[in-house]
Amino acid sequence: MTHIMRYDDPKTLRADCRQGLWRSSTSGQCPGYVQANLVILPRDSAFDFLLFCNRNPKPCPILEVTDPGDPFLKDIAPQADLRTDLPAYRVFRDGEIVEERTDISDLWQDDFVGFLLGCSYTFDAVLDKSGFPQPHTTEGREPGIYVTNIPCKPAGRFKGPLVVTGRAFAGDKAAEVVMLTSRFGKTHGAPIYVGDPSTIGVDLTRPDPQYGGYPLHVGAGQVALIWACGITPQTVAKASRVPFMITHKPGHMFVSDLTVDELMRE
Amino acid sequence: MTHIMRYDDPKTLRADCRQGLWRSSTSGQCPGYVQANLVILPRDSAFDFLLFCNRNPKPCPILEVTDPGDPFLKDIAPQADLRTDLPAYRVFRDGEIVEERTDISDLWQDDFVGFLLGCSYTFDAVLDKSGFPQPHTTEGREPGIYVTNIPCKPAGRFKGPLVVTGRAFAGDKAAEVVMLTSRFGKTHGAPIYVGDPSTIGVDLTRPDPQYGGYPLHVGAGQVALIWACGITPQTVAKASRVPFMITHKPGHMFVSDLTVDELMRE
Repeated sequence: MTHIMRYDDPKTLRADCRQGLWRSSTSGQCPGYVQANLVILPRDSAFDFLLFCNRNPKPCPILEVTDPGDPFLKDIAPQADLRTDLPAYRVFRDGEIVEERTDISDLWQDDFVGFLLGCSYTFDAVLDKSGFPQPHTTEGREPGIYVTNIPCKPAGRFKGPLVVTGRAFAGDKAAEVVMLTSRFGKTHGAPIYVGDPSTIGVDLTRPDPQYGGYPLHVGAGQVALIWACGITPQTVAKASRVPFMITHKPGHMFVSDLTVDELMRE
Repeated sequence: MTHIMRYDDPKTLRADCRQGLWRSSTSGQCPGYVQANLVILPRDSAFDFLLFCNRNPKPCPILEVTDPGDPFLKDIAPQADLRTDLPAYRVFRDGEIVEERTDISDLWQDDFVGFLLGCSYTFDAVLDKSGFPQPHTTEGREPGIYVTNIPCKPAGRFKGPLVVTGRAFAGDKAAEVVMLTSRFGKTHGAPIYVGDPSTIGVDLTRPDPQYGGYPLHVGAGQVALIWACGITPQTVAKASRVPFMITHKPGHMFVSDLTVDELMRE
């Protein structure tokens, strides 16, 4: 049996990321704290991308946007450094992944804008605590990630298909899970699809190899719930051939100081 | 007694605006349809202002942002023309109001971006229908508008105080009104303050002369509820000395095709 390290405090996890001591998935880490997807773009793409997020709030719910050139957060994790405080990053050029890294300090430019977008790992902890445990969370694994045939609303150069994650629940629990997650608009909110998602182009047994995660098994008496996913900007980068973009590595999220309780009050 | 014209259909109201036949307040008009504040800015200010809206969603809840140069809406009122379809506009230069107009066609430039921000007139109709009628709505008047001492979160050059509207309710109804309006995040959501707002710099008997509206009388057994207001960008224009901006004239809103029922499903 694998020993899985558990962080409770986001500041400790981020400090370990900064020192290169934690380079793994953040699934199941720091339960009760809000996790975020990261997108970094130069200032001249920032309006179009912010507009893209506003037009597609389900996959891209904005938690914080940094001031151009400033790598430090002010709101969801004051003093956190976007260049070092995530376990792993991806660098895109012309829409293609050219590199994965654990530190982007030497790539940082004085016109970079960071976008922190809510992640469903956040509500996984809530589901866990509320009596809807997910196998992937308890095992520290990533849920399967799938590219749908649903186009996002475009904005400027940004366009591309919606990406989703799937989770399975007993039929008599699914409505409660819908209601519970609907209260967390900043972490994708309610599911975008309920049931077998083949009509939206998703085969739950085959996660997208580019983004990974484990196949979802929908058992007897269970139903699949499908949520919009913050990986969407990475697919959009490819579809739009974005000249330069940095993101987190899928599953390797930014863990903020914002608590689920604070999120629920919004 | 004054005869007050009532529109039911937003398309008719907008067509009459376009022809110069309706130049008055939209308070109480087209009940059940979402009304919006308008801000128009050149493309080079658009990122900072969109960021300002994202950081201050209570006063500036985004319903739609247009593509640069395109005066036509696509989402909340397809084919509506931002240049003509409001009853009245204000033009700001260096943060000061230089002109009021009923048509801005000859000012339009190919880098203009339009921001449509939800307006509380929308939930006035809901309150009315739900058994909480407001004197200002039933009389087609604007509620009082007040500038608080609460600073908005700045973004780029945009900064300034939060502007609010006030309404009074019986003590045994106020909580229900809070819950009801909390379901309408896109039209300012729940109140930002409950009770006598003198601590936030507001005297309800004295609406700001620049923005108008009628003084709020809080009767015996009533309590004031204070909502963030979409006039905030107009005060921000002044505080930030914004070089050029066009807005709606206070009370003279854009009336969209989006219904309250659609808004509530979001």
